[in-house]
Amino acid sequence: MTATPYQLLEQEWRRLHAFRGALSLLRWDAAVMMPRGSAEVRGEQLAALETEYHALLTAPKIIRLLDRAQANVRGLEDWQVANLREMRRQRDHAIATPVSLISRLARAAARAENHWMAARRDNDFSLFAPHLEEVLSLVRDKAALLGQALNLPPYDALVDEFSPGIGTADIDAIFKALSRRLPGMISEAIEAQQKEAVLPIAGKFSTSKQRGLTVEVMKAVGFPFEQGRLDESEHPFTEGVVGDIRVTTRYDVADPFDGLLGALHETGHAMYDLGMPASWRDQPVGRDRGIALEESQSLLLEMIIGRSAAFLRYLLPLVQKHYAVSGPEWEFDNLYRTLTRVRRSLIRVEADEMSYSLHIMQRYDIEKQLLAGRLAVRNLPEAWSAGMEQRFGTRPSTAADSCLQDMHWALGSFGYFPSYALGLVIAAQLWEALHAQLPEVDEQLARGEFAAVFGWLRENMHGYGAKLPVKELIKQASGQPLSANSLLRYLQSKYLAEAP
Amino acid sequence: MTATPYQLLEQEWRRLHAFRGALSLLRWDAAVMMPRGSAEVRGEQLAALETEYHALLTAPKIIRLLDRAQANVRGLEDWQVANLREMRRQRDHAIATPVSLISRLARAAARAENHWMAARRDNDFSLFAPHLEEVLSLVRDKAALLGQALNLPPYDALVDEFSPGIGTADIDAIFKALSRRLPGMISEAIEAQQKEAVLPIAGKFSTSKQRGLTVEVMKAVGFPFEQGRLDESEHPFTEGVVGDIRVTTRYDVADPFDGLLGALHETGHAMYDLGMPASWRDQPVGRDRGIALEESQSLLLEMIIGRSAAFLRYLLPLVQKHYAVSGPEWEFDNLYRTLTRVRRSLIRVEADEMSYSLHIMQRYDIEKQLLAGRLAVRNLPEAWSAGMEQRFGTRPSTAADSCLQDMHWALGSFGYFPSYALGLVIAAQLWEALHAQLPEVDEQLARGEFAAVFGWLRENMHGYGAKLPVKELIKQASGQPLSANSLLRYLQSKYLAEAP
Repeated sequence: MTATPYQLLEQEWRRLHAFRGALSLLRWDAAVMMPRGSAEVRGEQLAALETEYHALLTAPKIIRLLDRAQANVRGLEDWQVANLREMRRQRDHAIATPVSLISRLARAAARAENHWMAARRDNDFSLFAPHLEEVLSLVRDKAALLGQALNLPPYDALVDEFSPGIGTADIDAIFKALSRRLPGMISEAIEAQQKEAVLPIAGKFSTSKQRGLTVEVMKAVGFPFEQGRLDESEHPFTEGVVGDIRVTTRYDVADPFDGLLGALHETGHAMYDLGMPASWRDQPVGRDRGIALEESQSLLLEMIIGRSAAFLRYLLPLVQKHYAVSGPEWEFDNLYRTLTRVRRSLIRVEADEMSYSLHIMQRYDIEKQLLAGRLAVRNLPEAWSAGMEQRFGTRPSTAADSCLQDMHWALGSFGYFPSYALGLVIAAQLWEALHAQLPEVDEQLARGEFAAVFGWLRENMHGYGAKLPVKELIKQASGQPLSANSLLRYLQSKYLAEAP
Repeated sequence: MTATPYQLLEQEWRRLHAFRGALSLLRWDAAVMMPRGSAEVRGEQLAALETEYHALLTAPKIIRLLDRAQANVRGLEDWQVANLREMRRQRDHAIATPVSLISRLARAAARAENHWMAARRDNDFSLFAPHLEEVLSLVRDKAALLGQALNLPPYDALVDEFSPGIGTADIDAIFKALSRRLPGMISEAIEAQQKEAVLPIAGKFSTSKQRGLTVEVMKAVGFPFEQGRLDESEHPFTEGVVGDIRVTTRYDVADPFDGLLGALHETGHAMYDLGMPASWRDQPVGRDRGIALEESQSLLLEMIIGRSAAFLRYLLPLVQKHYAVSGPEWEFDNLYRTLTRVRRSLIRVEADEMSYSLHIMQRYDIEKQLLAGRLAVRNLPEAWSAGMEQRFGTRPSTAADSCLQDMHWALGSFGYFPSYALGLVIAAQLWEALHAQLPEVDEQLARGEFAAVFGWLRENMHGYGAKLPVKELIKQASGQPLSANSLLRYLQSKYLAEAP
């Protein structure tokens, strides 16, 4: 019996999956293990494998097989049909932008990244501006080509790469609801919190102790150390594939929680990947359903669970054991207040869960204007300051606090930012549904039991892989259409009701 | 101006070089970092990349370009001509054996390796025998096909993969010279050494202290830690490419020297790779000239330099500093005697430099008989015992001490063993020439100065890459044709003359 076109496609994607895993390991190693002086050699290896991956994915054979499989789609089961759809989606995305454009963009981004660092250091935006112009111009070309291929407006086409099935109309509706309520809620929360004394946490918490605590918590969560690793890197990330998944964090010896929470964020990503349907693990339908859902899972674990009273009840004795600490500042109430402090920070990555979305809206508004040419790069710093003044009431005074705080635009990542805020919105919506269906979840978390939480997530979300469109998956899992309502209710009850 | 066929070939090999580097990193990670449960996923990644590498190397385009470049060979410089020859050699080796045979051999070897371990554990050769039969039969097919393609007898074709340009005639001549002299020399050396008291070295030497010592010595040797790493693994090895080269060793807390000498062995490999001509580093002519020369460089550093009196003068204060030891057993004479003890061991990897070659001859004789079908697998244990009795005067009593001590045959590596003994012969021959041309080398080594040694090696050997055939390179570097004479002179003067 000869293989069907669909079966041949599965074979091709098995090979692509192996390439993806190899590429992922090369990136992990570059950030965690590689000697400092080896970047050039690694760059050549990554470029060679990425080029080959692109060539395999866009080969004429693939489109012929896709067309032949499509003609026989009636003979396929529903997971196979969804898989075929995702195969075509990957191929269409890959072929929409010529390799020459992608590699020009990669080179421009490498230059822009260097000048972004120099501009931050010297507090001088003009060092970065011409390189951002160059990147932006190439991103515009890419967005136009992607938009043509996907029949979407340019910015929506970029968003579609990260959050398939979500467009600016969805984002605008959610951001409108959030921006109507959040500024007032933030003021109210800060006012309420000012009435509570918070004792400062001082001391040195060695990397090895922080790692010991982090590993114990990750094991409780369910991270499989026999098929995964935890390491350190400058920025936390998750790489690898199911079967060999690798998360990193960074430890600050002055901060006993930062490394743990960073690791929990990444563990959230890892648990999502690990929850995919096992029999589809090397196929497109067996992958995550985009960055917004990825972020929903990392923020759910880091922000919503990781800063909950229930989780802190489990964590507190572990903290006391690993750090050998005691005293009034290590009492439950003080730590809870420390972990849930709302602040008007100028920095996105330091923001609390209440003000986080405002930082994203700032970036969303500005990157749309940049892409459409309605905002010139030279006017970006002033537009940034004006936006911060309007949203937070203060203007940044240094480059590192301003539009130079994130690397995304230097790297050509436009359309990525909204997925952070969408992730938080989705996390809250899933959490509300999970909480309603598992009334004992707080008691379980307080005992360090995560099985029910991840059981629910697997059954209602992870296990669908990329089978359903994002909005349909969320509606099915939560019983509600995607909206900001759950996040607003969650923030209201956590920050503006009585203390736990 | 369009690229010439030769230039296009260089481009293709730049890509293959990047693939090789990626494959090497995947193997390094599997042995050093990978979680225990991730072997299956890694196997898929390695297989996918190896298959693609083979496909790129044997594509019809390559042979067309090779033929066209060959037709214009008069326009090329001598390094380019040599590069073209090595390209064709790689391609001819790759295409001589069909992918299906290689992958059947890989699967049979994986099974045989498992049963080899079980047979060692249970001291029962019959558990391994049928799997060795299967591997041997596939190796015979491979040797026949390679022999046809290269116009060589089957066993010589296998040797040619590891030691290009060396055949059984060369090996036989060298082994004949060695076997005539070594048994008598060994008896004489053991008798002489029995007159010297050797105080035993006792104590626990922590891994971190051993690593500290090893790193300091490797830095003195010239290993570039800014573009390389030292790690631990079950068996020491060298992986990576120039620009990111990675060696491993293993530490035994009861043995203060084993981890260091293992690392020196691997550093010898690394220094050879690092000595290749820089402008050819991603081309076939810019690579090592086969396993025999690789082993010559590792054994030169581990055995000849690493166990020399001059080196020990440099090492002794470092040992005392890192291990914080003193006492009569740590005096120079006692350590020198410890490091140069000659023994009639049954185990190859424990053998000293005097008896090492006898272990190789044992394997060489037997594997030729196995391949030719003159020795049946079921009779291998008896043939092994008879050979050991003849060479060392004793018979092994357990499987782990017998023909089951090495993994090579289980993995299908026939024709590999001779390169170890050739390596030692070549190392001694180069050392003799180097020593004659650099009369101050002992004083330099005693001061921990390695620059002159590696300067000579680069100028006379490393820097030629794969440009010259092995025998021509050795003759040019040493002024003598390849022979066992230097090794015999070296062993005579080190073990049978006065103590230093």
